[in-house]
Amino acid sequence: MEDRGISQAVIQRLPRYYRYLGDLLDNEVERISSSDLSKKMNVTASQIRQDLNNFGGFGQQGYGYNVKYLHTEIGKILGLDESHNFIIIGAGNLGQALANYSSFETSGFVLKGIFDVNPRLEGVSIRGIPIRMMDNLKEFIRDNHVEIAVLTIPKTKASDVADLLSDTEIKGIWNFAHTDLKLPKSIIVENVHLSDSLMRLSYKIGHSGEGITE
Amino acid sequence: MEDRGISQAVIQRLPRYYRYLGDLLDNEVERISSSDLSKKMNVTASQIRQDLNNFGGFGQQGYGYNVKYLHTEIGKILGLDESHNFIIIGAGNLGQALANYSSFETSGFVLKGIFDVNPRLEGVSIRGIPIRMMDNLKEFIRDNHVEIAVLTIPKTKASDVADLLSDTEIKGIWNFAHTDLKLPKSIIVENVHLSDSLMRLSYKIGHSGEGITE
Repeated sequence: MEDRGISQAVIQRLPRYYRYLGDLLDNEVERISSSDLSKKMNVTASQIRQDLNNFGGFGQQGYGYNVKYLHTEIGKILGLDESHNFIIIGAGNLGQALANYSSFETSGFVLKGIFDVNPRLEGVSIRGIPIRMMDNLKEFIRDNHVEIAVLTIPKTKASDVADLLSDTEIKGIWNFAHTDLKLPKSIIVENVHLSDSLMRLSYKIGHSGEGITE
Repeated sequence: MEDRGISQAVIQRLPRYYRYLGDLLDNEVERISSSDLSKKMNVTASQIRQDLNNFGGFGQQGYGYNVKYLHTEIGKILGLDESHNFIIIGAGNLGQALANYSSFETSGFVLKGIFDVNPRLEGVSIRGIPIRMMDNLKEFIRDNHVEIAVLTIPKTKASDVADLLSDTEIKGIWNFAHTDLKLPKSIIVENVHLSDSLMRLSYKIGHSGEGITE
């Protein structure tokens, strides 16, 4: 399967395909044409065919897509056929909210530990997982084969924690701290800057009459 | 000021400029060249000049940008010079976490109300704001000049709530429900699909040797 040099835009859209196909599966739809999928997803059918062709196609002309097969294959491309251990660093409101999201687990993301620097939180449990102090972070990551660290910490703490993580086996950081992290290239970062998103909404509300180009 | 037909990509980047300029201000930097800003932000200087030219420029050749002025002007473009009343619908973990983010307020986003359908939450307060039931949502939005509704509800509830909101004066929805909403064109939606973001991270970890094109 050829999947080198996939564009950012395709990667951006891939989880959305997975989500729509999952909804179709839940509704017991077995087969869907690219044109029906395109109406549902509000993208063009040719966009769908192009995107999926990046990974070898999956469709047979005039016959549509097998929903279950396509869902499974996109899941594999996204790495959801394997489990990924993760930890949450920062047990504030957002960290606790994410720790309570059991739906991540059904996609293969397994919460192994929650860390904080506030001694009052030490030993408090969320979904049976105790909050730990940062002292043994490095060993914990190694011993528990942790792949992903979720950072739900203030931006003032983010660069210190990023430095600490640089020296571990962590493969990726899901960063909610409101700053861009400096990390070795070997560690992948996916940012969720909530304030940026709220500001984009504010921009679009203020300029709603004006149109936005692609 | 010419700001019609601004591209999605520029809008995507605008809050990041605002954030970096805010950090420079905090560090009492008064003036910055596009090349220094470009090093900090890890984008090309010509990208910065192009992006800002969409809004009329702001820089003088060879003299750099006035940080405070540029920060203020980008803030205006983002609509942050005015206050925006918002409500949160869904007082679960994530809704409560967002309700506790006082930093939104400093950008002009004022939390007016929190809504839920769980009667056990009625009257419970977050930052002094009581959780309300959904009965008087429409009147509340009108009476409090609410512009933005934040949806932190399960995807199964999302389309009903979207229908309810269609019939109000709401201008924008910040949607955390894991589904795409169907709404009249007059209501702007900004989605934060957390699972999609986590799956993109998983994809990038699994394909880290392969390179991603722009």
